[in-house]
Amino acid sequence: MTWNLEPHLTTVDQNLPIGIFDSGVGGLTVYRALHERLPHEHFVYLGDTARVPYGTKSLATVERYAIENSRFLADHGVKMLVVACNTASALALPAIRNAVHVPVVGVIEPGARAAVSLAKGRPIAVIATEATVQSEAYKHAIREIDPIAVEVIERACPLFVSLVEEGWANSEVALSIAQHYLGDLGNAQIGALVLGCTHYPILRDVISSVIGKTVPLVDSGEATAVTVETILESRGLARRLHEDFARTRHLCDDLDHFYVTDAAQRFAKVAERFLGTAPAVLEAVEVWGHDELRTY
Amino acid sequence: MTWNLEPHLTTVDQNLPIGIFDSGVGGLTVYRALHERLPHEHFVYLGDTARVPYGTKSLATVERYAIENSRFLADHGVKMLVVACNTASALALPAIRNAVHVPVVGVIEPGARAAVSLAKGRPIAVIATEATVQSEAYKHAIREIDPIAVEVIERACPLFVSLVEEGWANSEVALSIAQHYLGDLGNAQIGALVLGCTHYPILRDVISSVIGKTVPLVDSGEATAVTVETILESRGLARRLHEDFARTRHLCDDLDHFYVTDAAQRFAKVAERFLGTAPAVLEAVEVWGHDELRTY
Repeated sequence: MTWNLEPHLTTVDQNLPIGIFDSGVGGLTVYRALHERLPHEHFVYLGDTARVPYGTKSLATVERYAIENSRFLADHGVKMLVVACNTASALALPAIRNAVHVPVVGVIEPGARAAVSLAKGRPIAVIATEATVQSEAYKHAIREIDPIAVEVIERACPLFVSLVEEGWANSEVALSIAQHYLGDLGNAQIGALVLGCTHYPILRDVISSVIGKTVPLVDSGEATAVTVETILESRGLARRLHEDFARTRHLCDDLDHFYVTDAAQRFAKVAERFLGTAPAVLEAVEVWGHDELRTY
Repeated sequence: MTWNLEPHLTTVDQNLPIGIFDSGVGGLTVYRALHERLPHEHFVYLGDTARVPYGTKSLATVERYAIENSRFLADHGVKMLVVACNTASALALPAIRNAVHVPVVGVIEPGARAAVSLAKGRPIAVIATEATVQSEAYKHAIREIDPIAVEVIERACPLFVSLVEEGWANSEVALSIAQHYLGDLGNAQIGALVLGCTHYPILRDVISSVIGKTVPLVDSGEATAVTVETILESRGLARRLHEDFARTRHLCDDLDHFYVTDAAQRFAKVAERFLGTAPAVLEAVEVWGHDELRTY
């Protein structure tokens, strides 16, 4: 009796946008993956730049921030919510699902599924923030998909985020930091490595050169886009439009709206580095402090 | 008629602690400097670890966070407030002084004064966060002290904070990042370099080896401790105790109380790296969301 658990879904408008939130700018790699796979859809992106990063913060704090972000997007009218931030996906998915009444997709489960399928029984490495590693969310998700599977090696790489935001992804410094974090994985015969933080796909080349170019890298954003497509189709939520429409879309055009909780100018600058273009529509907003007024 | 502007000061108890706040753990270098110079005093330290870092955030957001922190410490009963965070000192000092009724000391002006005195007319370099550099607070403070002075070279070094928190202060990686940021300063004949972020004193050796060991480094924390001592003496606020008392004190003993807004465990771990010891009294608190109830 699925309709009984989610009665509201019957009335959801297919033309509503898909909400995406991240702790900051990193989720733009997930936005890009979604935009590429689903060019018919509109997106509303929220970057919590006033409180970024989440990866060094506690469960209670990450949950609180994630709920505030989710409610902001739900209020905005979205048909679905994508939690682009790995840390929030790892720590706060149950709390988010309690807080809003639309389907919620995190990046952990799709990433874990892609890794299991690529690794073919060999060890899976997961690199992520301190909080994500500590939660063991990827390990649990992988074990749930394949209970008798594989060794899972999890490793926190905190400096990677600052490296990417500084624009040093292809520097000598990036290479020596990657060697420090991952040098020993070259001999671990790993079958797949999960890029378990939204910033890490930007470091793809450097990471590959350290762990070996034959090891497949899992970009959780791309894996998540596949999951989102499946859910949209199965629930009749996909936007139906003439094929020509998709061809006229481009990243960050004015059909996609971007919100940040602080420092819009810095966000635009880093967005340009990540996507090659800055958002056409970008606005600073507050997402906190109105909990007691809500009726969720 | 100074008493007319600050009538409350006449009733302040000398035995109250001194409040210190920082965006996170970095301000512990300022705490250490204060503790060393003023062993008779008690301290209450607040690290806003739920919202760290401030250095990439906007004026409005840094002001809001700084006011919330200051009010928390004022409510706690402090005789004086030290803003250990360079970014908050650079952006929010006027707002903080409006929000609380105790003397407020930031780290910028003392650091600028020490640099002018050391540089003897040669150029002064200031390294700091993006927000501090953008505010030009050090440049203004230096010009105010010495209007006809000296060239001021300001430079943002965002990766330094993550390096220190990761415990890589003395690594090859730290050296190559410092060379990238500061390599050209070796030829600039600078007279002093201001460590304009609380994390940077931990990188003292690496920075010195890049810019030249003869260039004096200004630790704003030490300079601030001198200013605080002067203010305590001049206002009759210093704690008077038997000399023996000071000899029994040690860093982080149970007379100094530490509060964090998130992740106390991580704070304790990094504190141990910074100070060689973790706080005896450490508690997680909330500092936001009660503005409308206050009567300041």
